[in-house]
Amino acid sequence: MTKLRWGMIGGGEGSQIGPAHRLGAQADGNFSFEAAALDVDPEKGRAYAQSLGIAPDRAYGNWQEMLAGEKDRPDRIDLVTVATPNATHFEITKAFLDAGFHVLCEKPMTMTVEEGEEIVRLAESTGRICAVNYCYSAYPMVRQMRAMVAKGEIGAVRCVVANFSHGHHAAGDDDANPRVRWRYDPAQAGVSGQMADCGIHALHLASFILGDEVRSLSADFASTVSARVLEDDAMVNFRTEKGTVGRLWTSTIALGRMHGLDIQVFGETGGLRWASEQPNQAYYQRLGGRVEIMEKAESGLHTDAARLCRVAIAHPEGFPLAVANIYVDLAARIRGEARDGLPSAADGLRSMAAVHAAVDSARHEGAWVDARPPMFR
Amino acid sequence: MTKLRWGMIGGGEGSQIGPAHRLGAQADGNFSFEAAALDVDPEKGRAYAQSLGIAPDRAYGNWQEMLAGEKDRPDRIDLVTVATPNATHFEITKAFLDAGFHVLCEKPMTMTVEEGEEIVRLAESTGRICAVNYCYSAYPMVRQMRAMVAKGEIGAVRCVVANFSHGHHAAGDDDANPRVRWRYDPAQAGVSGQMADCGIHALHLASFILGDEVRSLSADFASTVSARVLEDDAMVNFRTEKGTVGRLWTSTIALGRMHGLDIQVFGETGGLRWASEQPNQAYYQRLGGRVEIMEKAESGLHTDAARLCRVAIAHPEGFPLAVANIYVDLAARIRGEARDGLPSAADGLRSMAAVHAAVDSARHEGAWVDARPPMFR
Amino acid sequence: MTKLRWGMIGGGEGSQIGPAHRLGAQADGNFSFEAAALDVDPEKGRAYAQSLGIAPDRAYGNWQEMLAGEKDRPDRIDLVTVATPNATHFEITKAFLDAGFHVLCEKPMTMTVEEGEEIVRLAESTGRICAVNYCYSAYPMVRQMRAMVAKGEIGAVRCVVANFSHGHHAAGDDDANPRVRWRYDPAQAGVSGQMADCGIHALHLASFILGDEVRSLSADFASTVSARVLEDDAMVNFRTEKGTVGRLWTSTIALGRMHGLDIQVFGETGGLRWASEQPNQAYYQRLGGRVEIMEKAESGLHTDAARLCRVAIAHPEGFPLAVANIYVDLAARIRGEARDGLPSAADGLRSMAAVHAAVDSARHEGAWVDARPPMFR
Amino acid sequence: MTKLRWGMIGGGEGSQIGPAHRLGAQADGNFSFEAAALDVDPEKGRAYAQSLGIAPDRAYGNWQEMLAGEKDRPDRIDLVTVATPNATHFEITKAFLDAGFHVLCEKPMTMTVEEGEEIVRLAESTGRICAVNYCYSAYPMVRQMRAMVAKGEIGAVRCVVANFSHGHHAAGDDDANPRVRWRYDPAQAGVSGQMADCGIHALHLASFILGDEVRSLSADFASTVSARVLEDDAMVNFRTEKGTVGRLWTSTIALGRMHGLDIQVFGETGGLRWASEQPNQAYYQRLGGRVEIMEKAESGLHTDAARLCRVAIAHPEGFPLAVANIYVDLAARIRGEARDGLPSAADGLRSMAAVHAAVDSARHEGAWVDARPPMFR
Ligand SMILES: NC(=O)c1ccc[n+]([C@@H]2O[C@H](COP(=O)([O-])OP(=O)(O)OC[C@H]3O[C@@H](n4cnc5c(N)ncnc54)[C@H](O)[C@@H]3O)[C@@H](O)[C@H]2O)c1
Ligand SMILES: NC(=O)c1ccc[n+]([C@@H]2O[C@H](COP(=O)([O-])OP(=O)(O)OC[C@H]3O[C@@H](n4cnc5c(N)ncnc54)[C@H](O)[C@@H]3O)[C@@H](O)[C@H]2O)c1
Ligand SMILES: NC(=O)c1ccc[n+]([C@@H]2O[C@H](COP(=O)([O-])OP(=O)(O)OC[C@H]3O[C@@H](n4cnc5c(N)ncnc54)[C@H](O)[C@@H]3O)[C@@H](O)[C@H]2O)c1
Ligand SMILES: NC(=O)c1ccc[n+]([C@@H]2O[C@H](COP(=O)([O-])OP(=O)(O)OC[C@H]3O[C@@H](n4cnc5c(N)ncnc54)[C@H](O)[C@@H]3O)[C@@H](O)[C@H]2O)c1
Repeated sequence: MTKLRWGMIGGGEGSQIGPAHRLGAQADGNFSFEAAALDVDPEKGRAYAQSLGIAPDRAYGNWQEMLAGEKDRPDRIDLVTVATPNATHFEITKAFLDAGFHVLCEKPMTMTVEEGEEIVRLAESTGRICAVNYCYSAYPMVRQMRAMVAKGEIGAVRCVVANFSHGHHAAGDDDANPRVRWRYDPAQAGVSGQMADCGIHALHLASFILGDEVRSLSADFASTVSARVLEDDAMVNFRTEKGTVGRLWTSTIALGRMHGLDIQVFGETGGLRWASEQPNQAYYQRLGGRVEIMEKAESGLHTDAARLCRVAIAHPEGFPLAVANIYVDLAARIRGEARDGLPSAADGLRSMAAVHAAVDSARHEGAWVDARPPMFR
Repeated sequence: MTKLRWGMIGGGEGSQIGPAHRLGAQADGNFSFEAAALDVDPEKGRAYAQSLGIAPDRAYGNWQEMLAGEKDRPDRIDLVTVATPNATHFEITKAFLDAGFHVLCEKPMTMTVEEGEEIVRLAESTGRICAVNYCYSAYPMVRQMRAMVAKGEIGAVRCVVANFSHGHHAAGDDDANPRVRWRYDPAQAGVSGQMADCGIHALHLASFILGDEVRSLSADFASTVSARVLEDDAMVNFRTEKGTVGRLWTSTIALGRMHGLDIQVFGETGGLRWASEQPNQAYYQRLGGRVEIMEKAESGLHTDAARLCRVAIAHPEGFPLAVANIYVDLAARIRGEARDGLPSAADGLRSMAAVHAAVDSARHEGAWVDARPPMFR
Repeated sequence: MTKLRWGMIGGGEGSQIGPAHRLGAQADGNFSFEAAALDVDPEKGRAYAQSLGIAPDRAYGNWQEMLAGEKDRPDRIDLVTVATPNATHFEITKAFLDAGFHVLCEKPMTMTVEEGEEIVRLAESTGRICAVNYCYSAYPMVRQMRAMVAKGEIGAVRCVVANFSHGHHAAGDDDANPRVRWRYDPAQAGVSGQMADCGIHALHLASFILGDEVRSLSADFASTVSARVLEDDAMVNFRTEKGTVGRLWTSTIALGRMHGLDIQVFGETGGLRWASEQPNQAYYQRLGGRVEIMEKAESGLHTDAARLCRVAIAHPEGFPLAVANIYVDLAARIRGEARDGLPSAADGLRSMAAVHAAVDSARHEGAWVDARPPMFR
Repeated sequence: MTKLRWGMIGGGEGSQIGPAHRLGAQADGNFSFEAAALDVDPEKGRAYAQSLGIAPDRAYGNWQEMLAGEKDRPDRIDLVTVATPNATHFEITKAFLDAGFHVLCEKPMTMTVEEGEEIVRLAESTGRICAVNYCYSAYPMVRQMRAMVAKGEIGAVRCVVANFSHGHHAAGDDDANPRVRWRYDPAQAGVSGQMADCGIHALHLASFILGDEVRSLSADFASTVSARVLEDDAMVNFRTEKGTVGRLWTSTIALGRMHGLDIQVFGETGGLRWASEQPNQAYYQRLGGRVEIMEKAESGLHTDAARLCRVAIAHPEGFPLAVANIYVDLAARIRGEARDGLPSAADGLRSMAAVHAAVDSARHEGAWVDARPPMFR
């Protein structure tokens, strides 16, 4: 099988998520890395791209150059990943979809619900893939839980509890730390801080595992560090389309927690639990039975979980390989195969709409609001 | 030191909490068990009391007999424990306080806020101890966390997250199970199900560790098993007097969780975590440092934690000894010593008032309400 | 039921194990504490006994006085606990058995195999109970595992791995610490350091759960702190009567471990795991199945486990209640009921003989030796 | 930077370790996969190689063809990975080193000590890299522990305890399972079963972290499944050159354990613990301090650990990325940079010699034997 050609925007030297994408795209030999506009500083971007093996003429200074350069090449890239800061996602994603490229966009897909709807329509009209990097959904044990729910192995779902809390912004002196400060500044981050940054992953994960969508919600936001305008701690109660009760807590000041993304799903006949810090196990209790430890790559996993396991049971697989699993499915989709579970523009829109709804609710003392984007009401 | 005389109402054969009280009162040799009205069935109560070594004339058929019998004895009991079903707590506690006995009452102390205020006033006017069995507060590591907060070791507290969730009522057929059914029936359980049963422990624990009180709250209740009237799953957001943000989730349908009472406290300079299923450890992260595992009975614990450890480090101590620690402090108080930390009638009232406030909020779509009893506003 | 009368030798103020015995004997109201010779210092012993409620005439200065005083009283004690330093166990236990008392002796029961055999014979000839405080065997989940093995739920046992390691003697300056120093001094501790102190618990636990006895062994001892004569780290390989392979590691210099007593049992059709720091759970994997978490007090436990649970599932029970369970069975036995599982003088002898065999093997470069006491060969 | 050219022998479709090598070599874009002889069946090997993107003329039927084909190409591969069954490692590795290729050989490097010595000499004389895939040594937290030991952060090491136990061969019917059966058949597996397969990883890991070598050892082997000739459970006691005490247990019948490779290191002033199932944390207790949880990618890690972390703290990284780290260092070495820690032919020889010594000791009832290969005595 020949490799697909891949390009990347953002994710320059020293960026947080860049390495995971490069590893994810190349790990399985599906993509060759051919073009890039990696940095907000054109010179640094070009130099770093070349140090990574990109040919000089495809090591672009910015995304506009890249779009122009790639557009009409016979060997143009098959897929572009957008891993720039949030405010630029819409514009770049739109431009590349428009030009007929497949896009993997980082979360949050857009800043506004309107922009999100536009992307959804554009993806539809162009017939291009627009995936969103909700990479946690690509862990084998998350797929296992999703399949179990779908097959009724825990019965109708009564309640889902999802958290994403860490303590990495607990230091109160944001002024001294520009990498943190912008996140709580509406001018740069938009309407939401931690909900848009981390809570959104938990929102997606809940919907993904449940195979259900958030319908309405009530939120309580707090800016516990006084200088912050946007929330650094938030609680959202929600109801899904099917009536499941949802609880979602997210925080950046949770000292003692490192990467507290975890989820519990409680059904009529069984319960499930998974935590991203120990992603290769999940816990399952059948009504009346004991808690059982399910293991990645154990025999008997549901197909969609089994196919995403790369090495034998209890040989841990981690975050970069979850990202790689996204690329595995992207490659399959680009090659024309069907793949269930790849987070779509619609998923990116729905979760962003729920973040906006949460902001709205929090501003109105937790009033219950519709969490759906207008186009899906 | 001569033993104090102790009596018990409720906690008959097969009851859930009875054994913990008997063990707790006798474990340290502080109390001798002298009088009892253990069962709703007078005959069974008398027989069981005698089988436990109670003299026939003090093995009473009901609490009224017991009150009459004990009142004027020269060797009358020093302390009575009330471990009957919730609806009887007020009446019995009131009668025994009135007659000059010290009382340890099970939670919830009363069914209504008004009754709670009456007990608080009565305890004050009679000068008798009225303690409430918030026994989790007597675990050494809980005391350690409380002392750490009080001494500023985690700085001003920004957020507290307390849960008490289990899956023991996940089976949907309450009709078949009378021990479960009554809990969701307003006629028997009052205004609240799981909040009054378990959430109330988490409420107290949060206040206790913070040394702060719940001021206002917003609640979302759900009866996930359709036949239930009262809530079996609830989320409460709150703010304390000092402005700390609170999150509290409690559930009885959380399959996979056994006894999920846990608490996290996040301050400006440190974070703490403790879970009741592994009560002998607590986790502490200083801002900028690693997570450290604190151990019960380690050297250097704060005094109030150290004094409640009974055996050497890493020799686990459990729930019955937390109850026993309540009796240790009761004995000291009865003997005239001062003891900080014993949950009081005021604590019983405050947490019950917060439960009522949560019911009220939940009925009004999560409106924020005052959580304080009128007498403490 | 009237209480049994109980007395105690050793376990004075500040002692390590004394409090666990007092709590264990009294917790369930089976025994009343009537006589004591608590301290090597007669005055301190008498004073402390009285502070604990012992009548002045039964607060003895030493065990000889106590034996003389109790012997002919009509209300003499029913059971005496011997919780003095190791070298005195034999003499005291012998004297009390001889005088017709039931005895609970701390481990190790004796210093030599010959003494051990003498106690076994004496217990037999007098018909008195001589139990040894292998208290870990009284945890409900240990009983559950024993019952599972006995009922064939894991098939024939292939291998058992038991550890008891901690780091509390890791500080190298024993001279500065008399409580540690004596343990590595042959003049005071006898032939063995850590094997006789902790390894012996693991030895007993393995035999107990397997329902099988150590037959032969090979040992490797080390004194990792240079000034020490006796071992502070030891490894023993063994074979049981039924041919099971055994591995046992014990250490006192294992920094990072607090109370690392744990055991794993591997059978033809299932495996079991339990650790004393989290005693209320055990892990069970059936061949071809998932690991299941077994919980203390879960429904369906084997009888001998279920009867020793005191409070509901996931309400933790700890070390002092394991000791209390020993007293529960002692009370039953004294009252004439049969009880399986109470560690006997024969158990005390066997484990002590195995320690001696390990010493012997270690001195001969790990040569395989018979681990059985002569009387059981 | 241009990519290095990489080839692979063994690791065909459905093989256990093949995918980890392909992922490891390609993940970071250091190597392009150019040539392969993947399968014992030439046709299958050629077809699979092409399906992975290898050009038809470099998709070889066997390693001899590959050697012949690559030897004189101007674009010949820079590195070959040997991931065939154990008995072929020596011959293939030798041939490729001889022809001037760099080699990454799977463990065990050879079947005999003599062969191992030959490889060591050949690597030296040719000046080629011959690395052995002791991939666990490339986990960041393993590197952190190694650096801590080297820098004296736990003082002189007293004792190391390493285990590698699992239950995946617990089913007794090897005859029905050829993938298991050959491992216990001396004709196919050589002198050792589980020690050569898994124990050898633990041996290397201990030496690696300690920066010290096994000098002498005593072993106890068992074939707990009766039909097996070679050991499926083994215990090895050892002493290192510097006098550290070692304990190593390895088993394949440990039902309940999935991938129980873990290691504990106890020094004069600190202790360390790490387990491969949760590879992103390690536990550290300073003498007199609490246990601290060290996290992969936390700030302040030693250089050699920090440089091998790919994503942010608490984003788990797993086994395939440990393998990838081996390739990262191989690429650097091939490009002429120095890299500490890459497991060498000498390491492969030493661990294999220790396995042979263990076999020898086990056959002589655990006699202590020299564990070093003759050339390093
Ligand atoms: N899916 C996940 O789990 C996950 C995790 C982390 C970050 N993210 C998302 O990834 C995105 C990037 O986050 P990050 O943490 O890596 O940020 P970062 O600040 O660490 O790096 C951003 C990179 O983008 C480059 N850049 C900025 N503007 C650019 C432009 N106009 N053109 C080209 N390059 C530009 C910067 O030079 C830098 O290299 C964000 O949208 C974030 O929400 C997702
Ligand atoms: N603090 C805790 O952690 C905790 C735990 C469990 C229960 N509780 C509380 O303890 C109380 C009892 O709960 P339980 O679970 O043991 O209930 P239960 O139903 O198991 O037992 C109640 C006992 O009280 C007896 N009883 C009922 N009415 C009586 C009366 N009028 N006079 C005398 N005896 C009477 C019953 O015969 C029975 O023996 C409740 O208030 C409950 O909320 C507290
Ligand atoms: N079963 C267990 O888990 C466990 C745990 C700890 C200790 N132990 C055993 O308990 C025994 C005591 O250990 P410890 O750690 O409590 O010791 P310790 O040194 O802490 O206390 C010993 C006590 O015995 C008293 N004593 C000494 N000689 C005496 C004598 N001749 N007569 C009366 N009193 C005397 C001392 O004054 C002291 O109060 C030992 O045999 C030990 O092995 C068992
Ligand atoms: N480092 C580790 O953690 C680790 C883990 C697993 C296996 N291994 C080692 O990797 C090696 C392979 O083990 P595995 O479990 O993948 O085995 P496997 O049986 O699953 O696969 C072996 C592969 O090699 C191929 N092969 C066999 N003979 C060949 C030949 N002469 N030429 C070319 N290809 C040939 C087979 O067709 C098959 O594809 C072994 O040496 C094993 O010890 C190491």
